[in-house]
Amino acid sequence: MSVSDSRPRPTISDVASKAGVAIGTASKALSGSGQLRAETRERVLASARELGYQPNSLAKSLQSGRTYTVGLMTSDSVGRFNQPLMLGINDALGAGRMSVFLCDARGDGVREQYFLDSLIARQVDGIIVTGWRTDHRPPLGGDRLGVPVVYAYAHSADPADVSVLPDDEHGGRLVGEHLVATGRRRIAVVTGPVDYEAVPQREAGLRAALADAGLEPLPGQVLHGDWSESWGREAVDILLSQQTAFDAVFCGSDQIARGVADQLRDRGVKVPTDVALVGFDNWEVFAETTRPPLTSIDMNMEELGRVAARRLLDLIDGTPRSGVERLPCRIVVRESSRPSVSSLAPSADETAATV
Amino acid sequence: MSVSDSRPRPTISDVASKAGVAIGTASKALSGSGQLRAETRERVLASARELGYQPNSLAKSLQSGRTYTVGLMTSDSVGRFNQPLMLGINDALGAGRMSVFLCDARGDGVREQYFLDSLIARQVDGIIVTGWRTDHRPPLGGDRLGVPVVYAYAHSADPADVSVLPDDEHGGRLVGEHLVATGRRRIAVVTGPVDYEAVPQREAGLRAALADAGLEPLPGQVLHGDWSESWGREAVDILLSQQTAFDAVFCGSDQIARGVADQLRDRGVKVPTDVALVGFDNWEVFAETTRPPLTSIDMNMEELGRVAARRLLDLIDGTPRSGVERLPCRIVVRESSRPSVSSLAPSADETAATV
Repeated sequence: MSVSDSRPRPTISDVASKAGVAIGTASKALSGSGQLRAETRERVLASARELGYQPNSLAKSLQSGRTYTVGLMTSDSVGRFNQPLMLGINDALGAGRMSVFLCDARGDGVREQYFLDSLIARQVDGIIVTGWRTDHRPPLGGDRLGVPVVYAYAHSADPADVSVLPDDEHGGRLVGEHLVATGRRRIAVVTGPVDYEAVPQREAGLRAALADAGLEPLPGQVLHGDWSESWGREAVDILLSQQTAFDAVFCGSDQIARGVADQLRDRGVKVPTDVALVGFDNWEVFAETTRPPLTSIDMNMEELGRVAARRLLDLIDGTPRSGVERLPCRIVVRESSRPSVSSLAPSADETAATV
Repeated sequence: MSVSDSRPRPTISDVASKAGVAIGTASKALSGSGQLRAETRERVLASARELGYQPNSLAKSLQSGRTYTVGLMTSDSVGRFNQPLMLGINDALGAGRMSVFLCDARGDGVREQYFLDSLIARQVDGIIVTGWRTDHRPPLGGDRLGVPVVYAYAHSADPADVSVLPDDEHGGRLVGEHLVATGRRRIAVVTGPVDYEAVPQREAGLRAALADAGLEPLPGQVLHGDWSESWGREAVDILLSQQTAFDAVFCGSDQIARGVADQLRDRGVKVPTDVALVGFDNWEVFAETTRPPLTSIDMNMEELGRVAARRLLDLIDGTPRSGVERLPCRIVVRESSRPSVSSLAPSADETAATV
């Protein structure tokens, strides 16, 4: 299975000589270690490629005591969150010449243990654990793991562990600030189950932004259901039956927001003229195709993956780190929350000025 | 970074003795090689886990000349197709004690070459290439790779390569047979761009099934656009403007079908009473939440991943294989295509009998 056994393998000296650098420089460029100018590294890598130079990673690993491999323990079968996370992790680790072992545990403890055993046997330098929700989870493998671990969009119950999470409260605050700035005053909330930590965190951020403007979410119009379009549709019927005028709905996900948009449309309520609508996740296949396209909060999952990878590289290099790091969200404004004078909004007098 | 250095490592003899099997049997169970009863393998693995037995994979690799690693070269940033593929691949290779290196090339040639170099340097036993469309692509790394490669939901332009693909023609045939069996006779098609090989293949399957019933798709009502909801909505307006009655629409994707469903609803056409609707992909977040829920074709992507992994294991074991293998699809029937007497369908007389 090895490559080009029939001709002599080029050596690192051949690569160095072709690139016009010292052997030590070539070695640093190929191993990704040391400080080198980008051009130098590129020239060495190009020479190595042209010559077909292939370092023996296994022998290198036995010499260095490191394998330059990382385990990626995932558990999101829909892939909504893990796909961009994996892109970012793969990117940041690849830049450091680390390779990533994919371990899809599907949230199943037995599978996770099986993959963990295989990662330990392969002597990975570290492990990144990703999740599909941000709630506390048991630390991977208990206390005696002996391998650096970082949790990305997953939250270890052990406070000594490193967990990198989106700042859901910040996301909620962005929504509140945006709705206030665009003249909305009577804000309903249609969100997911209360046992998800992100749900009260986003609501707290919204409340904080509204409080700064002397407002609060409409009493009795903070509604919790599941993360589905059908819940969004059902919630609109509840909101309209309560006969409390509202001029904006903040939804816990873009799927919920899609359901809200479709039902408002069916019930003759215009978005954004009568009601502004904001989702969460910025899942393009939903946000961009909703009628009208959805303003949404982006949790920057790919960047979150990159940051988690860099934290792991720090731990592997011996830099002590611990605790929870929360990364800011950003708001992507689309048509569903454009400012507009609303027939349902009693306090819409500021709206025109805000445009 | 290694684990439990402070106590003596258990040996394979300890594992064998605890499991009550011979050392050779324990070795086979731990390496995933040879023919063993499932119970025996499970007992050995359980004993190994309880004892904390960890084989040294690096040393094992240098002895065997194999690394028990496989590269997974992916390029689907949305993750719609690659996520279930990866699950299946990870599953089937994990059962053979193979670990998977994740390489997300994002369809970029430079990134693909970078990852390929790193896989070669790590002396992987084989590589699986996945795609986000089934059209021909250049073989990975050209002719001289010297490492077994299998293409999964990707189609190597080299006919000597092994490509595992869904049988799109079969998918189209299933749709035609289902629509005919449920009494539909006047079938329009709203699908994706003609330069996707899957598009004419699915249409060919539909035509074959209709021909068996003496039918054909409605002339002038096979419409090509992009893979989007907005195209689905636009296509409905085209279909209705042509004033040719139709009693079914076969869509090239569930996203297109969602757009068709929404626009038919807006235009007062009832699904499935007036028009049956069938999508493709069985992407649950769309298919299950469309009003009404969508009948769709499932390409069994997870199983496709498993088959691709098994073909790669065959190649690694020296079994010669080549060419394209197409796996059957299955139809998932939901409310959007329930049989019904249609006001638009002149030949609906068989419908009641079919229920």
